[in-house]
Amino acid sequence: MMPLRTIVNKVKISKAQKFIYARVFDGMPKEDNFELVEEDIPPLKDGEYLAQAQFLSIDPYMRAYTYKLPIGSTMMGSQVAKIIDSKNPNFPVGKHVVGEFGWRTLTVADSKPGALMRRPPYLVPESEGMPLSLFLGILGMTGNSAYFGFMEICKPIAGDTVVISGAAGGVGSHVGQIAKIKGCKVIGLTGSDEKAQWLRSIGFNEVINYKTENLMTSLRELAPERIDSYFDNVGGEISSLVIQNMKKYGRVSVCGCISSYNLPYGSLPKATIIQPSIIMNELKVKGFLVSSWKNRWMEGINKNLEWLREGKLVYKETVTKGFENMPKALIGILSGDNIGKAVVKV
Amino acid sequence: MMPLRTIVNKVKISKAQKFIYARVFDGMPKEDNFELVEEDIPPLKDGEYLAQAQFLSIDPYMRAYTYKLPIGSTMMGSQVAKIIDSKNPNFPVGKHVVGEFGWRTLTVADSKPGALMRRPPYLVPESEGMPLSLFLGILGMTGNSAYFGFMEICKPIAGDTVVISGAAGGVGSHVGQIAKIKGCKVIGLTGSDEKAQWLRSIGFNEVINYKTENLMTSLRELAPERIDSYFDNVGGEISSLVIQNMKKYGRVSVCGCISSYNLPYGSLPKATIIQPSIIMNELKVKGFLVSSWKNRWMEGINKNLEWLREGKLVYKETVTKGFENMPKALIGILSGDNIGKAVVKV
Repeated sequence: MMPLRTIVNKVKISKAQKFIYARVFDGMPKEDNFELVEEDIPPLKDGEYLAQAQFLSIDPYMRAYTYKLPIGSTMMGSQVAKIIDSKNPNFPVGKHVVGEFGWRTLTVADSKPGALMRRPPYLVPESEGMPLSLFLGILGMTGNSAYFGFMEICKPIAGDTVVISGAAGGVGSHVGQIAKIKGCKVIGLTGSDEKAQWLRSIGFNEVINYKTENLMTSLRELAPERIDSYFDNVGGEISSLVIQNMKKYGRVSVCGCISSYNLPYGSLPKATIIQPSIIMNELKVKGFLVSSWKNRWMEGINKNLEWLREGKLVYKETVTKGFENMPKALIGILSGDNIGKAVVKV
Repeated sequence: MMPLRTIVNKVKISKAQKFIYARVFDGMPKEDNFELVEEDIPPLKDGEYLAQAQFLSIDPYMRAYTYKLPIGSTMMGSQVAKIIDSKNPNFPVGKHVVGEFGWRTLTVADSKPGALMRRPPYLVPESEGMPLSLFLGILGMTGNSAYFGFMEICKPIAGDTVVISGAAGGVGSHVGQIAKIKGCKVIGLTGSDEKAQWLRSIGFNEVINYKTENLMTSLRELAPERIDSYFDNVGGEISSLVIQNMKKYGRVSVCGCISSYNLPYGSLPKATIIQPSIIMNELKVKGFLVSSWKNRWMEGINKNLEWLREGKLVYKETVTKGFENMPKALIGILSGDNIGKAVVKV
């Protein structure tokens, strides 16, 4: 007789698909940096469960952090998965789980924290029919990066002028909306007119297309009173220019540095130094990894869920279909193709 | 009959000498950027006093801030002066005053704050024969920059590894000694072997001569456990390298950026970007002007005075004699000539 766990929805499941990091990145990732392999699913031990990926998160950090992985490792990442077999009463069959399972279709997991965020898997909270993919985006790591990274470091107060780079991404577009909720004037920086238009439609006061406009001129024109806080997703020369336009005691939350992610480790680019501005205006520049707030994780999700229900937060997703397209989706986000949060639907 | 204020030590004093900022800086200051002029001393009004410069402070910030001054302005700066005439009971004749009077031999002053620090003049505190020049250095702005900038931003705890750039300057050498008092391991960066030797003699655990050593290699060797906090006086590429070697949650106190002070305003140099390190290690980078602690000014001076009396702080001064040598002394400090605090003795 077949054990139960191999018969789900009448389909025999005994092999997982996964992407490994097969060849060292050289600049922008290419499809042949990855390899799709199959793996046998071992029998569940006590405390384990089998999770079937529904949506997988695609994030710029994947390019930056992969240098830490030995060649042949499973690619890192979070997913929302359905529990299809279980020997763990806290993770029952039929529920959905958010876990750092990597780029895999099927995962034998337990309660232990993932390698990257060191955050243990958790069940998708009761959310009255919210789309599952949101628990990777606005109600997941992306939303928490926006919530904690902006609230705790930029400490917004009504009337602040806030600048956001990478504004049309999942985190950037979310930060802009929180800033609006808090009564700030919000200026987004983005690289296409289509993205700029969307950002205006969701409430950004001003948007600068840094590819077609002179960023320094536009910033001086749109923020003549200068900038109170800057939420930075891109780093590099754009950030140097923004930081030169900040106000006394301004705050900079450094979330990402996508402008340098495709460069080899150890060969970072140069940009105009920021120390003179940091001194003259006594700025505070603080970097963060959202894992630092792992103990307050559900606070962020619940706050974003509340704003979402009140209609104060809207979102956009760029959904790529098919697990086999994970590499394409990552290449896309690093090329600036996405608007809002990028996910892959299995 | 001559009014009292013009007869001091039997010498008639009716003219002040002062240096004006006469020609716009182009790179390293030269003597002809300044002009020594004479000025009549007006009669004192109620609330005023006449102060005769004894020691004048020479600081790198003078190069950086001068771009704000209109051509023809008196050069900015602090001095310790003797009160030789007074119509202000709080500033009696015979006492010494610390004030932001600029590069002047004689000043008609009142109780109002100076233009740069917005700190009002204050009498030299009772200090049992401490040399007057110290109230510009270890017991003045330099000492307070070290005390507040290090204690409030780097928040040292015993066992921390602390790196200090511009370590042999007035602020740097002072920070290193506070770090030792707090039980830290102290690594100084400096540009000559003579300075390195002095820093070792006052208790620095390690010193790197960045002009003759490979800074990255030396840092990795001397701080294999990486760096908890960095007190930065220089900015630029040196700082990018140090910041790449910091520990999780490291703190950077940005006090000065002497590496860029001689460049024209608006044409700052480029250096390796620091955002990737700021994110990965969740660093806090905070700039400061010591004027931010003007309301706690005497706390810093009294703490440094206490340490000085206990023999826990030693100091070195580079004293240039003659008011006419103010420009030379500034050029010297920007060329790295000084060890410890630079002052001019009138």
